[in-house]
Amino acid sequence: MRITVCLTQTRPEPWVEGLRAALPDADIQAWEPGAPQADHAVVWAPPQDFIDAQPGLRGLFNIGAGVDALLQLKLPPETQVVRLDDAGMSVQMAEYVCHALIRHFREFDFYEAEAREGRWAFRKPRERADFAVGVMGLGVLGERVARAIGQFEFPVNGWSRSPKAVEGLRCFAGEAAFDDFLGASRVLVNLLPLTEATRGILNSRNLSRLNQGEPGGYLINVARGAHLVEADLIPLLDSGQLAGATLDVFEVEPLPADHPFWRHPKITVTPHGSARTMREASIAQIAGKIRAIERGEPVAGVVDPKRGY
Amino acid sequence: MRITVCLTQTRPEPWVEGLRAALPDADIQAWEPGAPQADHAVVWAPPQDFIDAQPGLRGLFNIGAGVDALLQLKLPPETQVVRLDDAGMSVQMAEYVCHALIRHFREFDFYEAEAREGRWAFRKPRERADFAVGVMGLGVLGERVARAIGQFEFPVNGWSRSPKAVEGLRCFAGEAAFDDFLGASRVLVNLLPLTEATRGILNSRNLSRLNQGEPGGYLINVARGAHLVEADLIPLLDSGQLAGATLDVFEVEPLPADHPFWRHPKITVTPHGSARTMREASIAQIAGKIRAIERGEPVAGVVDPKRGY
Repeated sequence: MRITVCLTQTRPEPWVEGLRAALPDADIQAWEPGAPQADHAVVWAPPQDFIDAQPGLRGLFNIGAGVDALLQLKLPPETQVVRLDDAGMSVQMAEYVCHALIRHFREFDFYEAEAREGRWAFRKPRERADFAVGVMGLGVLGERVARAIGQFEFPVNGWSRSPKAVEGLRCFAGEAAFDDFLGASRVLVNLLPLTEATRGILNSRNLSRLNQGEPGGYLINVARGAHLVEADLIPLLDSGQLAGATLDVFEVEPLPADHPFWRHPKITVTPHGSARTMREASIAQIAGKIRAIERGEPVAGVVDPKRGY
Repeated sequence: MRITVCLTQTRPEPWVEGLRAALPDADIQAWEPGAPQADHAVVWAPPQDFIDAQPGLRGLFNIGAGVDALLQLKLPPETQVVRLDDAGMSVQMAEYVCHALIRHFREFDFYEAEAREGRWAFRKPRERADFAVGVMGLGVLGERVARAIGQFEFPVNGWSRSPKAVEGLRCFAGEAAFDDFLGASRVLVNLLPLTEATRGILNSRNLSRLNQGEPGGYLINVARGAHLVEADLIPLLDSGQLAGATLDVFEVEPLPADHPFWRHPKITVTPHGSARTMREASIAQIAGKIRAIERGEPVAGVVDPKRGY
């Protein structure tokens, strides 16, 4: 069995070594043009050239949670595209989102600015009942994030394409319920997969409906930059309709140095690090799935290319 | 039944009104010198003069979690001193501590400094197994905080005066186990009551034992300023033995404008707001306890003056 590793922006060597240790009987190489065909590939944003040279690929393993970049390629019809299930990402996502939420809710930016001036100043505590959080996307990551938020006693709403029931969550499903979900939420957390149906979903129309249309909504985007219509955000912040945004993902990454998001006082920018891929856990998971596929068993995380996730 | 409200640094009127609504049959007044004796008092840092004028006091209700200031007064021997049980404070404490912990662990200060310069920069993610958190004090607040931290998959140690067993926590008890507890913890969260036994417990000797004595410990103090030997902290930070500290409480409050903690780059200062008293919840709780005491029933949160909490 031959496994090829083809990663962009990430060194392949540690992955090759880790996979060799996990699957000692397989022939595992980093990809280079002209290399022989593989049975499985472990990839991040591979070029179409790579895919074109692998017509017999059985499994295509993405080392992140989102497979949108992969599905824009022309893939062999028999290839199973497999996402990472969790592999240490959901706890990081829960951390990131809870940090951003608490920071906003508790006004720690205000307290830090006062502290820089040596001022012992208070604000009236806010009521958490006024800060309902809406989580878009209730997959492995979304459910974990919603659970973490609920532990801090915020009201939590969830929205997903197909109906779900999650304990402690007020669940909304489908397009028909989307406006009600937005209206009932003041802080919006985006964990949707990027598909044709969700591209640009964070736009002026939808973001203006947060918090029953009253000013004060807050956006946390940890999914994909293309979910947000970037040109819509700053007017909503400058008019006061939105109180702020924490953004980890952008239309163009790295975010260009002259992009206005960097220095806008109501925007917190982080460099697509809300949930980093944990190599060891990911390798263990991918190796287990390759073994299962070779035994003819079904595996979790297989992507439906039509649905897009 | 007569109830007197005697608060410093807080307006008594909303408390008087709230208690009148909750206990319509009682005579409830804000204290002024010369006022008649009360059966119960609702207080924050009352003067000795007030106590001296209340020899028949049955219940003395503190509107915060820590009763150290109250126990420094000379109290009538029959008076029960009663703490607030929780009243919305533990969730705030969990928020505050988790925010400080995640901020440190995820190096968000670094990312914010880079973002201010428009730089898309990464650090290698830290391993949470290397960031065991030690929670000192396992009362209502400590247990809740420990549980919240555990949800983010950090190893959590707990230390208390008397042995406790809390699910998900490695529990240490008593002085004999204190050094082991410190060594096994990298981030130290202080939620102890302030007593003669705990005053100055956050000193150079003890803080140097964090993280098996290796550099990199981190302090989060949300209990009382007098737990920390303030003069010991900055040398530990400047030598690199401690990586940083988040402090909500201080020996002198408000923290004087020229205090070096305000502007030290490794110290985050907040103005004693980690858990604010929630008036409505507190009034409901105090009213319930006054009714119980009047019926001759035991109530939760009665302080043992010898133990100090």
